[in-house]
Amino acid sequence: MIAEILATGDEIRSGALIDSNTAHIAQELEAIGVKVIRHSSVGDDVEILVSVLNEIGCRVDICVVTGGLGPTTDDLTTAAASKAAGVELLLDHTALAAIKNIFKKRNRPLSDSNIKQAIFPIGATRMDNPVGTAPGFMLKIDKCYFFFLPGVPAEMRAMLSDKVIPIINKFPGNRKVCFTNTISTFGLTESATGERIAGLAKEFPGIKLGLRAKFPEIHIKLYAYGDDPIGLEELLSKTSDWVLEKMGKSVLSVTGDSMASVIGDLLRRQKSSIAVAESCTGGLVAHWLTNSPGASDYFIFSGVTYSDKAKIDLLGVLSETIERFGAVHEETAKEMAKGVRRIAGTTYGLSISGIAGPDGGTEAKPVGTVCIGLAAPNGVEGRRFNFSFEKRSMNKVIFAETALDLLRIKLLKAGQTEAIF
Amino acid sequence: MIAEILATGDEIRSGALIDSNTAHIAQELEAIGVKVIRHSSVGDDVEILVSVLNEIGCRVDICVVTGGLGPTTDDLTTAAASKAAGVELLLDHTALAAIKNIFKKRNRPLSDSNIKQAIFPIGATRMDNPVGTAPGFMLKIDKCYFFFLPGVPAEMRAMLSDKVIPIINKFPGNRKVCFTNTISTFGLTESATGERIAGLAKEFPGIKLGLRAKFPEIHIKLYAYGDDPIGLEELLSKTSDWVLEKMGKSVLSVTGDSMASVIGDLLRRQKSSIAVAESCTGGLVAHWLTNSPGASDYFIFSGVTYSDKAKIDLLGVLSETIERFGAVHEETAKEMAKGVRRIAGTTYGLSISGIAGPDGGTEAKPVGTVCIGLAAPNGVEGRRFNFSFEKRSMNKVIFAETALDLLRIKLLKAGQTEAIF
Repeated sequence: MIAEILATGDEIRSGALIDSNTAHIAQELEAIGVKVIRHSSVGDDVEILVSVLNEIGCRVDICVVTGGLGPTTDDLTTAAASKAAGVELLLDHTALAAIKNIFKKRNRPLSDSNIKQAIFPIGATRMDNPVGTAPGFMLKIDKCYFFFLPGVPAEMRAMLSDKVIPIINKFPGNRKVCFTNTISTFGLTESATGERIAGLAKEFPGIKLGLRAKFPEIHIKLYAYGDDPIGLEELLSKTSDWVLEKMGKSVLSVTGDSMASVIGDLLRRQKSSIAVAESCTGGLVAHWLTNSPGASDYFIFSGVTYSDKAKIDLLGVLSETIERFGAVHEETAKEMAKGVRRIAGTTYGLSISGIAGPDGGTEAKPVGTVCIGLAAPNGVEGRRFNFSFEKRSMNKVIFAETALDLLRIKLLKAGQTEAIF
Repeated sequence: MIAEILATGDEIRSGALIDSNTAHIAQELEAIGVKVIRHSSVGDDVEILVSVLNEIGCRVDICVVTGGLGPTTDDLTTAAASKAAGVELLLDHTALAAIKNIFKKRNRPLSDSNIKQAIFPIGATRMDNPVGTAPGFMLKIDKCYFFFLPGVPAEMRAMLSDKVIPIINKFPGNRKVCFTNTISTFGLTESATGERIAGLAKEFPGIKLGLRAKFPEIHIKLYAYGDDPIGLEELLSKTSDWVLEKMGKSVLSVTGDSMASVIGDLLRRQKSSIAVAESCTGGLVAHWLTNSPGASDYFIFSGVTYSDKAKIDLLGVLSETIERFGAVHEETAKEMAKGVRRIAGTTYGLSISGIAGPDGGTEAKPVGTVCIGLAAPNGVEGRRFNFSFEKRSMNKVIFAETALDLLRIKLLKAGQTEAIF
């Protein structure tokens, strides 16, 4: 089966927005053995929409369309779909009841324009939206099954995986299966990672490899594609082991988990707790750690001490230390880590103090310098790193991830008697 | 003049890579008054390439193509272009000399495959690449001028601005310009926003409207498009004022700024400072506030007090208050706000305590309940909200934005004597 993807909306057409939906859809379709042959994108213009829908309709078997299902007047996809299919629009009372229910739950008044979201072309199969108000729908135009989804990435992704993929998997002619596995890593660049596992294609010819930079992590995606599920799973598992050996302790997780969730698992398993003192990362470490449900089992406190005064008053850093070494220094970081561990009464205390930029850099401590402190039951250590990403937002992220990686390595050592992964 | 953009390559087609080139090209073309009507993307397949080039050739005046000019066997764009135009390929000796020169300068041996990069369709105009080895070229196919550029973003960008844009600017018939403005809002849904400004199309027929949900904000984009720059800017400014009046205090910024940066500006202007006590938002408020460079002017401290004990020990919340009302309550939030304001010595103290889920909800306080405290020089207030987004990550975001919005309204009132925007 072959497919196309169509992204709609003036924001994408004009370049105001980079379309990340299409790449996600392409990956998901390819993963279940559907070959994507073309992507298109057009603006909010009914005439052009109708024409591109008709072109695609006679070219391929499947098309996923994103965008233009919202309540406002520039959301034209449903109207265009009905024109392209040559059918009328009809109000779907079940969909309307569902939308009314969402608004009732959210305690917000339903507006007339939301009723528009319950109108579909005759013959369309409605697909509920588990995340937002706009339902999607499936409609056959010419020889092609079109899946119309919202443009909001979270809504599109949920509907793609929960509704569209299961439907396509039941289409006759789609007999191949694809197993994928994601190995998350941190510490090597994309090209260094590529070189480290360069022999993979030769060693495992049945595996397709994809490297994805999810800054600052590199995710290694393995695809096994064919018609023997048991053999494929076995092959995938062998390949994962091979990658693990090549990548060593750069591997965060063989199931694609994020740094924060790996750390959460380690802390929970070791019945340990963590408190954080953040300066330049400004709360990002705490935000990541608390993204995992149940983080209260191990995450106790983070103090975002942006000023020197806060470091002294609230964490108990000695003013002499800051005067002598400055706020960005291993010694200060060590006192911050010890201080926050003490006041929060946790197993570990982690601290970050650095220069995220764009200002505040000096020759000795340029933008991108970060000092990290880690206080543990057996003592405290301080480390310094220099990164050259220049952008403030990237520095915050790399500083936070680096601090968490030090903690991760520490936790791995602390739990060395158990199996690591 | 109307244009299309074509991105080529299997990495983009399969979704392994998100195509950011197209959005950049679209923005650059629209900025010089060329209307982009469609984007397409296809893989490394000569037959499909030829067919899409011919389709575009009879549809529009201009097309920018990226990718497939490299030295390897999967770089097929030049061959496809010659087939689509119905002309032969020819070695360009000047181009070959330039490529040889680059390799000599880099001290790298020239490989046979690099010679391929000096071969062009007959009738093509070569465009040198100031950054890499692959030259681009211009070729007319049917009625359309095609600009073939490399896919490497830095090379593509340099050639677009240095070569392609100057050529297009000299085309007769290209006289139009486009101005845009973004107004960021919070507090109304996309549909409610659409209804509030429903009269815009009638009132300002020269303006094109785009609504974009950047959860939890709604951004209103205004596009003015024509051939009189001064008139367009005036029209855009009048339209912005009109939108501002309709949207009232839901407007965060008439220049598209985020909540955190608007608050940063207000605090800085009023010489005020802020400390935050976060529970369920887990550091997100502090992370947002510290994303703005120079945040240390007004952001002093955030205490992420996840446990009751931390709220009591570190913020001075009374244990009786938590026992009597629970951690998620207006009274607890008020004590948290007062406590953090006191220990950090700031003008304002903001606190958030809620249930982000998926667990921890009760009938009286379901997941999505949040209590917010705001301590100011003239007293402290506590508020409660209920949201039903259900997802933990969305709840963190809506809780954080809602807390900051209360602070924003407070700051607007405090600064009422000055002009608000």
